[in-house]
Amino acid sequence: MSVLPDIHETVKRALAEDIGTGDYTTQYTIPEDAVATARMVSRSSGVVAGIQVAVQVFLQVDPSLTIDSSVVDGEYISAEDILLTVSGSARSILTAERVALNFVQRLSGIATKTARLVRLVEGTKARIVDTRKTTPGLRALEKYAVRAGGGYNHRFGLYDAIMIKDNHIAIAGGIASAVQAAYSQAPHTMTVTVECDTLTQVRDAVEAGADIVLLDNMSVSDLESAVDIVAGQAATEASGGVNEETVAAIAQTGVDVISVGALTHSAASLDIALDIRV
Amino acid sequence: MSVLPDIHETVKRALAEDIGTGDYTTQYTIPEDAVATARMVSRSSGVVAGIQVAVQVFLQVDPSLTIDSSVVDGEYISAEDILLTVSGSARSILTAERVALNFVQRLSGIATKTARLVRLVEGTKARIVDTRKTTPGLRALEKYAVRAGGGYNHRFGLYDAIMIKDNHIAIAGGIASAVQAAYSQAPHTMTVTVECDTLTQVRDAVEAGADIVLLDNMSVSDLESAVDIVAGQAATEASGGVNEETVAAIAQTGVDVISVGALTHSAASLDIALDIRV
Amino acid sequence: MSVLPDIHETVKRALAEDIGTGDYTTQYTIPEDAVATARMVSRSSGVVAGIQVAVQVFLQVDPSLTIDSSVVDGEYISAEDILLTVSGSARSILTAERVALNFVQRLSGIATKTARLVRLVEGTKARIVDTRKTTPGLRALEKYAVRAGGGYNHRFGLYDAIMIKDNHIAIAGGIASAVQAAYSQAPHTMTVTVECDTLTQVRDAVEAGADIVLLDNMSVSDLESAVDIVAGQAATEASGGVNEETVAAIAQTGVDVISVGALTHSAASLDIALDIRV
Amino acid sequence: MSVLPDIHETVKRALAEDIGTGDYTTQYTIPEDAVATARMVSRSSGVVAGIQVAVQVFLQVDPSLTIDSSVVDGEYISAEDILLTVSGSARSILTAERVALNFVQRLSGIATKTARLVRLVEGTKARIVDTRKTTPGLRALEKYAVRAGGGYNHRFGLYDAIMIKDNHIAIAGGIASAVQAAYSQAPHTMTVTVECDTLTQVRDAVEAGADIVLLDNMSVSDLESAVDIVAGQAATEASGGVNEETVAAIAQTGVDVISVGALTHSAASLDIALDIRV
Amino acid sequence: MSVLPDIHETVKRALAEDIGTGDYTTQYTIPEDAVATARMVSRSSGVVAGIQVAVQVFLQVDPSLTIDSSVVDGEYISAEDILLTVSGSARSILTAERVALNFVQRLSGIATKTARLVRLVEGTKARIVDTRKTTPGLRALEKYAVRAGGGYNHRFGLYDAIMIKDNHIAIAGGIASAVQAAYSQAPHTMTVTVECDTLTQVRDAVEAGADIVLLDNMSVSDLESAVDIVAGQAATEASGGVNEETVAAIAQTGVDVISVGALTHSAASLDIALDIRV
Amino acid sequence: MSVLPDIHETVKRALAEDIGTGDYTTQYTIPEDAVATARMVSRSSGVVAGIQVAVQVFLQVDPSLTIDSSVVDGEYISAEDILLTVSGSARSILTAERVALNFVQRLSGIATKTARLVRLVEGTKARIVDTRKTTPGLRALEKYAVRAGGGYNHRFGLYDAIMIKDNHIAIAGGIASAVQAAYSQAPHTMTVTVECDTLTQVRDAVEAGADIVLLDNMSVSDLESAVDIVAGQAATEASGGVNEETVAAIAQTGVDVISVGALTHSAASLDIALDIRV
Repeated sequence: MSVLPDIHETVKRALAEDIGTGDYTTQYTIPEDAVATARMVSRSSGVVAGIQVAVQVFLQVDPSLTIDSSVVDGEYISAEDILLTVSGSARSILTAERVALNFVQRLSGIATKTARLVRLVEGTKARIVDTRKTTPGLRALEKYAVRAGGGYNHRFGLYDAIMIKDNHIAIAGGIASAVQAAYSQAPHTMTVTVECDTLTQVRDAVEAGADIVLLDNMSVSDLESAVDIVAGQAATEASGGVNEETVAAIAQTGVDVISVGALTHSAASLDIALDIRV
Repeated sequence: MSVLPDIHETVKRALAEDIGTGDYTTQYTIPEDAVATARMVSRSSGVVAGIQVAVQVFLQVDPSLTIDSSVVDGEYISAEDILLTVSGSARSILTAERVALNFVQRLSGIATKTARLVRLVEGTKARIVDTRKTTPGLRALEKYAVRAGGGYNHRFGLYDAIMIKDNHIAIAGGIASAVQAAYSQAPHTMTVTVECDTLTQVRDAVEAGADIVLLDNMSVSDLESAVDIVAGQAATEASGGVNEETVAAIAQTGVDVISVGALTHSAASLDIALDIRV
Repeated sequence: MSVLPDIHETVKRALAEDIGTGDYTTQYTIPEDAVATARMVSRSSGVVAGIQVAVQVFLQVDPSLTIDSSVVDGEYISAEDILLTVSGSARSILTAERVALNFVQRLSGIATKTARLVRLVEGTKARIVDTRKTTPGLRALEKYAVRAGGGYNHRFGLYDAIMIKDNHIAIAGGIASAVQAAYSQAPHTMTVTVECDTLTQVRDAVEAGADIVLLDNMSVSDLESAVDIVAGQAATEASGGVNEETVAAIAQTGVDVISVGALTHSAASLDIALDIRV
Repeated sequence: MSVLPDIHETVKRALAEDIGTGDYTTQYTIPEDAVATARMVSRSSGVVAGIQVAVQVFLQVDPSLTIDSSVVDGEYISAEDILLTVSGSARSILTAERVALNFVQRLSGIATKTARLVRLVEGTKARIVDTRKTTPGLRALEKYAVRAGGGYNHRFGLYDAIMIKDNHIAIAGGIASAVQAAYSQAPHTMTVTVECDTLTQVRDAVEAGADIVLLDNMSVSDLESAVDIVAGQAATEASGGVNEETVAAIAQTGVDVISVGALTHSAASLDIALDIRV
Repeated sequence: MSVLPDIHETVKRALAEDIGTGDYTTQYTIPEDAVATARMVSRSSGVVAGIQVAVQVFLQVDPSLTIDSSVVDGEYISAEDILLTVSGSARSILTAERVALNFVQRLSGIATKTARLVRLVEGTKARIVDTRKTTPGLRALEKYAVRAGGGYNHRFGLYDAIMIKDNHIAIAGGIASAVQAAYSQAPHTMTVTVECDTLTQVRDAVEAGADIVLLDNMSVSDLESAVDIVAGQAATEASGGVNEETVAAIAQTGVDVISVGALTHSAASLDIALDIRV
Repeated sequence: MSVLPDIHETVKRALAEDIGTGDYTTQYTIPEDAVATARMVSRSSGVVAGIQVAVQVFLQVDPSLTIDSSVVDGEYISAEDILLTVSGSARSILTAERVALNFVQRLSGIATKTARLVRLVEGTKARIVDTRKTTPGLRALEKYAVRAGGGYNHRFGLYDAIMIKDNHIAIAGGIASAVQAAYSQAPHTMTVTVECDTLTQVRDAVEAGADIVLLDNMSVSDLESAVDIVAGQAATEASGGVNEETVAAIAQTGVDVISVGALTHSAASLDIALDIRV
């Protein structure tokens, strides 16, 4: 199972944003010694992600809460499934509730959307991968949710891989010189991807020695031609116009990777609630 | 026009997340003195939000960039509309591009979804308001986008208003004692909302002196009855099951406020791109 | 009892400010394994506040210290009363001593001043409340101390309630238009206070629908007239010229709230010391 | 004139504490393009401190404000004196007002109290100095205010000088061994102070080679004897029971330094206001 | 020329560490209006790095200083060469001096050591690269200094490339399964390096499809054999026992990359001083 | 034994710098439940420093690791000595390894270099002390390493002692007026050092009442003369041109303190490794 990134500060910031100077409703209406048990329950079906984030939210609010999680991230859940149970101070549970749910709902939404696409390309070699179109401040977590949904990660940012796009090519004076400029300066541990809009560019990129050829907004037949041209000399990545209707055909072209911005920029939250018994 | 919250740290964190130790592609392929002009262009229609956030992204990357914005937040835009133009160092524009777009796309998605609901309740007195179901770390910005879309804000967090929900009522021993507990301790500047699932609770809440009665998941006819019961002694807020199909009927019940979690937790990004000319 | 706000960072900053690179006196003169017991003792009488802040100071310096508190915040203490006892590493106790005392002395000073005013208005319905005239960086703690002293809190900052003052009125073109501007934009959960210097303004504020009428620097007889004018249609708050000589008469005018800046900006510290036995 | 410490973060924190998600009153009632001029005016007499802090508050809120200060820190001011004038956006001035005043009022209160004691010891060689009994988080600023009032600073924290107190002495096995332990380990640039309650201890401290002898809670006649005993071999510092009634007699004993905790822990704010003309 | 990473926070932290509550010597002995000109001068020969870091140090202390740099990072300098000239407030220059020098001396030391090794491998295809053996907190800057000295960077951390070492191999059950585990989970943009101690391992790594084969602590003749075995199917990196005596022979084996921890963990500072004229 | 400064943030920053979004090699190749034992072993001889820093590194990565340290900082170690043993999650140990070593190697390098100089001045009264020529961001730790090596600390920064150098003297109008300016403003707890290049300056400094006379770049015979001139009226500190060849002769001149920048700016790391058994 995929490893959760370090989210201590992210959780702390989210709690500060919601609690501010205090959860006054709870302070005024709930006795300090009241205890409760709450169950996080799915209201629809999908793939869960963020259970351990919720656990951290509850524990940052109150380390004395007792928490049992019944599912692990990446698991398929149905409506009414119990995801976790938390017991202890009623005040603490009520104060943490919304932030815990906000994380799990969003991350599960991403995992669910990812899983749907992954299922649609089953039987092909294509990986479904994310992009840099993530929510500002939540990239590591959202990329974790993609992994939980059975997808893979693309580069994490501008710093860990070279991706030469149309503008870089235009200014650098062509694919060959751009790729050459990158290899001659980049750490030897870094790969070079070239974004191609045409089959001619695909040929140039392969010739220039690109590690990965990104096939942007190509028709299925052009994708097939591109895969033929590349002929295993580089990895192939399709992007643009990918959705649940198109992904299977794209995968069948033989591309290695299909990158989908909508995994993170347009996934609806999964409906999950906290039922509290006092 | 609504005032943008202080986003210096949010923008800084987003840039750090994406740039890390450096945008190596740009450093290796784009000469230090290359200049470019880029236009942020809409690919679909909607309501724009976050233009000044994009401006801050570009200026944090490079204060010497020249930026002209052609629209203001809250404006309706069509496909191919130019939102802003940025000129200067090609490296700086390329490095800032993705983070600037990530903000504008998400915020415009929220503003657009809000505007659709606002239009559907035109002619009624009902306000469309947001909830606390926001993206962790981006609440102030997302609530700003709701205002840009013509909506209103609900409370900002647990700290600036009292909202007594079912669990608070259960533990406090009923609506009357919960409301009394709140008023006797809360700052005199703070309002008290009571969440009601039944008309009996509505009566209790009004009698207890609640400022606002939250009518949760009620049918349209129950909402009408509730508005009658309240009879102007408190403000009325409908929530639950609100979508583009249901919102008009809900508004016509005469409620003052309709709160919609999906404004922030399930809005798809608006498609916006950056066209760069070198 | 009132709930202490989250003070982890405030305590951390205070300790860093005092300890810097190290408490060299203690490091050089006290053996690492020396143990001691210290008692925090009152040197005068008053109302204590900040005991749990002191506990956090000691525990941040050394989580292995054993601490027993003999009083709770809000309790009346006499000279020579023992507030808490701390045992463990002599080095840790000596290093934490000054910061722990600085917090408790200041907060107890505020609680004590508050309690004196609260006692003077007993038998009336008037609440004693604080203002925004707090020490920069310590507002949440100082407002907590006011609650410990039996007072109540006013708004926490500019963000959680609307307060329309003379300058807002002047620029907005009168009380009616200012109040209208506020209600038409503010979250429905937010109250509107109007500051009034004259009885005419009081009438205008009530007519405009203000939730709270702030009666600034009025004579006792004007306060009485204002309370009559308001006649329960809004809450009434008196401010200005409030001290131990004047507060009783002000309270007897029937105002709901009396706000006092001096609670936080001019309270002398309560004299409290740490007696250490080695 | 004394140099203001770096207060960028302190001012930023104070503004965040007060403004939170926004100054809604101002946003709703004051047009974005309204301009105003405000004068910071003294309501009583004293010594001003913190004018440049106020300037930083205004400029952090809005760098386009124009500010002219008419006095410098350390200057004696009378009621109705104008301290500074600020012009520009009415919104910005109103939003910054309270935080600017909170700083200037507190710091001027400290400077005023210091100046009164300094005047009372004129003609003697005694310096009035502060202690570590400062407001958590504001030590550098409060010590600056003491300098503005004509006083001097004691050590800034536990890290920049050795001060051996009764407990250190008890555990270290006497003054001689404690002083020896300190000199044998401390940086050669660090002084050693020994706190003495009796004249016997004074003799021991001098013999042990202390740089400074702290005479704690001694009668005036004991202070005189102590000064005789020390006979210039160390500096002498009186502390305990210092107030406006006692300070002159203490100074006349010939001590070099008189340290006064009340300068910072119990100074009332100076009454200063902001008069805004729109 | 290589691009300096974002060092705003690093410089800020370094200045706070040195200045603390104030540069008292300068405040007490230098008039506020004194001006000076200072020249940063080399006391020995080498390759300079960090000039723009020094510029940032001076400007963070005082944005009104005027600075002219006479050399660019990566340039060879001789004793008595002037690196930069700074003019303006004497106080500001004196306060910034030490921190500015500490950065330039250390970074130039690293660049100088790198340049010596780079020169020794001239005529071969071998790159000199750094490692993760950097000073905690200064990695990005130290890797920048390596580039300034003509070297190249290895991966920046654990997050941007896969490097399978002996322990990973042992636990994963051999090179083949470790490499397979990596490729099946890593982003397709990430390369895989396998550390090999023997020629057998080299064969296994190539067969497993490693992108890079790290030849650790091998003799020159084993390196030659390894290069033959790899035969261009992967990049080759030599490490261990690299110094000015051995590096040329290692380079002549035909390896692509030579990684040297001593570039950053054991480079002596270059002797550089600031001559101030008042 | 010397007390380790608070390094929580320093360790956290170092780990974040190395781990970033994750240690992917370990995540992909090491099972979550694999356990291992590792021994930190010296590869050469020297004086160890930073063992507790390494402990904190391991525990920040994983609080469940079991760690036994076999040596204490300041102890002399030989090649193959075991410094500490850590057991537990194989993933955690592998992820923490490099950062733990980076700290211990650098700090032990400083302690070792210090110890060599300390040994060379044995039998004299001279202390070996550090300077402000430390690595930006690591000053407190590097000064700790100097103490571990048997050296002493000079001032920690610009804030805790007065050091009047040539430029201060020139601007202040001579040694007498500079010293006078310092004493008349500095806290009475702060010492004044005067940097002297000539014996005439030494006479002036003593006459002006300096606490410490810094003898900069003087020949051994001038140092002897200076010590004679000072004649115990101030402490004497030699600096400049100090190395293993010169230090003994310098110490024999009778100076109290010898300050050596190379302790921190040019110490090579000590060779220490982590042997992991899985």
